[in-house]
Amino acid sequence: MNSKFVTLELGIKKNKTDGLLIQLPSESNTAIITTKNKFAAAPVKISKENIKTGSIKYIFVNSGNANACTGRKGYQNTKRILSSLSKKLLCSSDEILIMSTGIIGRQLPINKITHSISSHDFDNYCSLKSAASAIMTTDKYPKYLTKSYMIGRKKIMFRGLCKGAGMIEPNMATMLSFIETDVSLSKSFINKALKYCSNLSFNSISVDGDMSTNDTVVFASTGNVSFDINNKNLETKFLACASDFFIQLSSMIVKDGEGATKFIKLKINNSRSIGLAQKIARKISNSLLVKTAMYGSDPNWGRIVASIGSVDSKDIHPNKISLKINNILCFKNGNAIDNGTVKLKKSMTKNAIELSIDLNNGKFDQVIYFSDLSHDYVNINSEYTS
Amino acid sequence: MNSKFVTLELGIKKNKTDGLLIQLPSESNTAIITTKNKFAAAPVKISKENIKTGSIKYIFVNSGNANACTGRKGYQNTKRILSSLSKKLLCSSDEILIMSTGIIGRQLPINKITHSISSHDFDNYCSLKSAASAIMTTDKYPKYLTKSYMIGRKKIMFRGLCKGAGMIEPNMATMLSFIETDVSLSKSFINKALKYCSNLSFNSISVDGDMSTNDTVVFASTGNVSFDINNKNLETKFLACASDFFIQLSSMIVKDGEGATKFIKLKINNSRSIGLAQKIARKISNSLLVKTAMYGSDPNWGRIVASIGSVDSKDIHPNKISLKINNILCFKNGNAIDNGTVKLKKSMTKNAIELSIDLNNGKFDQVIYFSDLSHDYVNINSEYTS
Repeated sequence: MNSKFVTLELGIKKNKTDGLLIQLPSESNTAIITTKNKFAAAPVKISKENIKTGSIKYIFVNSGNANACTGRKGYQNTKRILSSLSKKLLCSSDEILIMSTGIIGRQLPINKITHSISSHDFDNYCSLKSAASAIMTTDKYPKYLTKSYMIGRKKIMFRGLCKGAGMIEPNMATMLSFIETDVSLSKSFINKALKYCSNLSFNSISVDGDMSTNDTVVFASTGNVSFDINNKNLETKFLACASDFFIQLSSMIVKDGEGATKFIKLKINNSRSIGLAQKIARKISNSLLVKTAMYGSDPNWGRIVASIGSVDSKDIHPNKISLKINNILCFKNGNAIDNGTVKLKKSMTKNAIELSIDLNNGKFDQVIYFSDLSHDYVNINSEYTS
Repeated sequence: MNSKFVTLELGIKKNKTDGLLIQLPSESNTAIITTKNKFAAAPVKISKENIKTGSIKYIFVNSGNANACTGRKGYQNTKRILSSLSKKLLCSSDEILIMSTGIIGRQLPINKITHSISSHDFDNYCSLKSAASAIMTTDKYPKYLTKSYMIGRKKIMFRGLCKGAGMIEPNMATMLSFIETDVSLSKSFINKALKYCSNLSFNSISVDGDMSTNDTVVFASTGNVSFDINNKNLETKFLACASDFFIQLSSMIVKDGEGATKFIKLKINNSRSIGLAQKIARKISNSLLVKTAMYGSDPNWGRIVASIGSVDSKDIHPNKISLKINNILCFKNGNAIDNGTVKLKKSMTKNAIELSIDLNNGKFDQVIYFSDLSHDYVNINSEYTS
């Protein structure tokens, strides 16, 4: 586990670090998950091609410009960046993954970028923290994490960074993340693990319900700690550690959600199907009324119940459902239980809120993490480009 | 067309008018559309029963309490209100429609309400404006409208009132409305007309994407202007007038949307299906990033495009789509056209914004009206119950 990080000033942001190169050790195996947005940006399209054909040696990231909705020229610009990098780093263009984040619909200052690349000293490595700082946009702080886990007597490590604070929703976000483990894993298993862990983490967080054109998560096996992943028991333990790491890293995005003052964990239990549980979780986590009530520490759970009831499904039975806020029963079997006792009101003032909904109609569960909607969210997002 | 209005102080709000009785002329025909929310309030359930069995003579409305999520007791309380009214007004309980709006999950002060009804003088009629004022909650002003139309040489009239400013979304809202026409219409035609007009108006507005437990629209034929509705040409003309009236009345809700500073008309044209057009329209109109950009007069149309692209459908083709803001072409065939010219920026400062999206992939259109997301929205909704 020894990826190296180099930061650059590409000239997209004025006199600011806005570029990052991640250099993977040889023999790494890499997997990628990207946005499902129809207007996926040029770098997303090209990275998806490269992961299929190339053996990935580098990951290049720029902030300040998403290179999305930029047509043929935007596509060619991404190709030109890869071409500059391949000359400088002495590798093939398709051995590089590329990610961009920032404003949509503007062309990159391509000459500044290629000039910056060709004149840069790529042997000047930086820390994980500096790397995370280089790709921030509206993020208030750099997001990175290193953590070790014990499985039996074997120690395994994870290291990762991510960025993102707005356009965060299930199915990714304006969110970029790179995570590596020192466990030596096959290409097929690292793909499986990325899918599993992302569903429990990056695909289960919501700040504003908007899905970006640029979301990308990369998971790489960059070390040589051997591990018998064919052993079902060990596989399960590895996935538990990996998903814990993914959830911790992705939670940082929610906690730093644009204007966020609360971190809300929403559990939907005993649903007829996983699809229904997800639908309800998304409806609640995107409800402006729920999000503003959370901001105001307002125990107005009627908004949560109304939100559940607005989901179009025959498998929602009002008289079976119960709702707890911070483990205090508020609503059960169609009746109000707690309409704002001192205990409930007091518990709402915490920064971490847990909403727990029991649909009592099946055996599927879903957890989602989301943030509240504050004045600062409106400040940040009404003044973004101007 | 001579429904009469009586306002009451029911004691739900302290020393405020919080009740309204609408007295329909005899021989009226009445239709009703209600919320699809699974947690539909007791008054909604009972009104749906009464419209089937009774010949409606009265409509009773209270504000300040939605009587939703109140279980068996809430249901019995609504029955008790109807029973008091029927004794006082000398009619049957099922000849009254009942609507409630306000906080969810609290029991009504039923003794105060029945006492107020039994001691009230129901011969003291008030104006349409006073009636509209009596049912306000977070509304900033009473919403009512009277308008006449000429069809050939015949003059027809509409009159209506409504309330609602939050929890406004397609498929209704915390929204109550009563509309009457002086045209004599059969019960079956008034049902058809209500459905047609609501789809173009009350079901095509969005303030916050939240669907209430109490939404109800009542349309009544209360006059004796004769009109040959079996004549296809005249039917079309009548529906055009009626829907124009419905759109004007429902637009007042968007303009008075909680914290609204902008009125946005969103047109989705040339969609493969009406369902897809609606899905895209709802996604955009509920996007926090789009709504905050509108508030900030920010021509950041990348957020609109990203929102279209996040809709899960195979019939969205990025390279076919064009987007106009206030008739200025911003994006076409995958390319940015206008990235913030002075003309575009200036046009964004208007209070009325028109977004026009051409999917270029079919023949179906959809129009939706929505509001922006402002600091005041957050103020209003973070401090509602507390």
